[in-house]
Amino acid sequence: MRQNITLREVGLRDGLQIHPTFMQTHDKLAWIAAEAASGMPEIEVTSYVPPKLIPQFSDAGPVTEGALRIAGLTVSALIPNLRGAQRGIELGVHKLNYVMSVSHTHNMKNVRRSPQESVADFRDIVALIRSQPDQGRPVICGGLSTALGCSYEGRVAVSQVVKYAVQLVEAGAQELVVADTVGYADPEQVRAVFKAVLAEVGSVPVAAHFHDTRGLGLANVCAALDCGITMFDASLAGLGGCPFAPGASGNVVMEDLCFMLDAMGYDTGVDLQKLVAVRALLSQALPDLSMQGALARAGLPRGYVVAAERQAA
Amino acid sequence: MRQNITLREVGLRDGLQIHPTFMQTHDKLAWIAAEAASGMPEIEVTSYVPPKLIPQFSDAGPVTEGALRIAGLTVSALIPNLRGAQRGIELGVHKLNYVMSVSHTHNMKNVRRSPQESVADFRDIVALIRSQPDQGRPVICGGLSTALGCSYEGRVAVSQVVKYAVQLVEAGAQELVVADTVGYADPEQVRAVFKAVLAEVGSVPVAAHFHDTRGLGLANVCAALDCGITMFDASLAGLGGCPFAPGASGNVVMEDLCFMLDAMGYDTGVDLQKLVAVRALLSQALPDLSMQGALARAGLPRGYVVAAERQAA
Repeated sequence: MRQNITLREVGLRDGLQIHPTFMQTHDKLAWIAAEAASGMPEIEVTSYVPPKLIPQFSDAGPVTEGALRIAGLTVSALIPNLRGAQRGIELGVHKLNYVMSVSHTHNMKNVRRSPQESVADFRDIVALIRSQPDQGRPVICGGLSTALGCSYEGRVAVSQVVKYAVQLVEAGAQELVVADTVGYADPEQVRAVFKAVLAEVGSVPVAAHFHDTRGLGLANVCAALDCGITMFDASLAGLGGCPFAPGASGNVVMEDLCFMLDAMGYDTGVDLQKLVAVRALLSQALPDLSMQGALARAGLPRGYVVAAERQAA
Repeated sequence: MRQNITLREVGLRDGLQIHPTFMQTHDKLAWIAAEAASGMPEIEVTSYVPPKLIPQFSDAGPVTEGALRIAGLTVSALIPNLRGAQRGIELGVHKLNYVMSVSHTHNMKNVRRSPQESVADFRDIVALIRSQPDQGRPVICGGLSTALGCSYEGRVAVSQVVKYAVQLVEAGAQELVVADTVGYADPEQVRAVFKAVLAEVGSVPVAAHFHDTRGLGLANVCAALDCGITMFDASLAGLGGCPFAPGASGNVVMEDLCFMLDAMGYDTGVDLQKLVAVRALLSQALPDLSMQGALARAGLPRGYVVAAERQAA
């Protein structure tokens, strides 16, 4: 068996945040439970933002509490600021994903702060976490959005990505996520950015978060694998399509990613059939959801033997 | 500028052959002309098969003749047998793509011959071509279908692919095409198969033909690029979806492939904007056509500069 790959489902956060219809809390929890049962090790279940800003996350409390009852699942949530961190700590979530944009314009539009100010905010968040009792302290993860391109500024310099990656790690990030937020990346660029980041951040684990907006999501995953990346974000059915590009894919499709990794001999711990079956919950809960995914339509190849069984044979 | 990549549009053959509606001859020729004008160097324009077998190719003669009037375009066509080769020679087509399946069952179902009998047929075809006057002799290309998996037999042994690749080259193939006909391949398998083939066939150019049935088409292209492959088949709008998997992609989407290669710094010679514009001809000609493609929906990244201009700057 090849190296383990650690996947994180982000559809409940990155997928649902732009969806106009509210997914009922019990539907979210059913999704989380079913995907956890398929073997998904970590799920980003919500975002701690003011409900009036994103009504989809008005049930962040009960969703977090429900998810935390699932044995073995790492429950993470996005936070944009200290207030969100406070909320996550109160709820006892396992991991906090703090996100800032490398691109100045994108960060200003998103959180009305310069990237430098966002790094300062991150230091305060780390201080808050470190002031908590050891037990139940969440893992703090630093996310770099628009690291491979920005819909306002276009190309983003590799040196900027490295700069903020280093600053987040120096500030106390225990993990990093480097994100192609708007789906601009190509495999060569992925190699350049991830190699540069890995060279500077030492032993802190680095995850990759790709969008499939221009169809290159899985090719970019392969490029990141080549660099030694073993942690990937994706969303079931590729939820997260851009509202300004109808039909365009959002995040990398989790089922297709799992299939690719399994076919390549990597161990994801995820049961492909069970994972694909979770899609039915989504379409029942939100019939207006645009669902992507090639594996779900085409099925597994004839006679396909999953990686774990190939290795055992 | 990085290495040149040579692309071949196969939508008129591989895409249309399963489409139930006949595309009018003038529409086919408009498509060919527009895509050639975008810079596409080679187009597989039809298949020389009996019209009653595939009515879509009943206009193989006028389509070939029309395409041959386009300056600079390499016009190729698929042939399943000697009769097809004879037809292509009469029409003066530039290149003949002979196709056989590596999988015994697939070849039996397709042409009612064992792979070994198909190799023997290929020898007759080469003899026929060599008996022609030098001028106007078509290039003869040997294609290996189901080389990365078969919908009847499942996995296909690498050794079988290599065996038939070597036999076709020894028989006189001037080019090879290794095809993942049913979209079973993953990047690791692509590397294994193409490395093994390249190691044995010497200096004969080898092209890759991938389907995107399970979403791995572009990732597989990257794996083939890693092996040194520089010739790829694809189809505009990903035409070629399987009739038994509604909504499933067919061939790799040509526009997305061109975008990926351009973004990676390869020179394809194709103008991305002009290529995407050709899609409108298809949807006008055949409104019932299911068209795939992420670039066409999402557009180029903001501030995107094509490879040729990046290099010039």
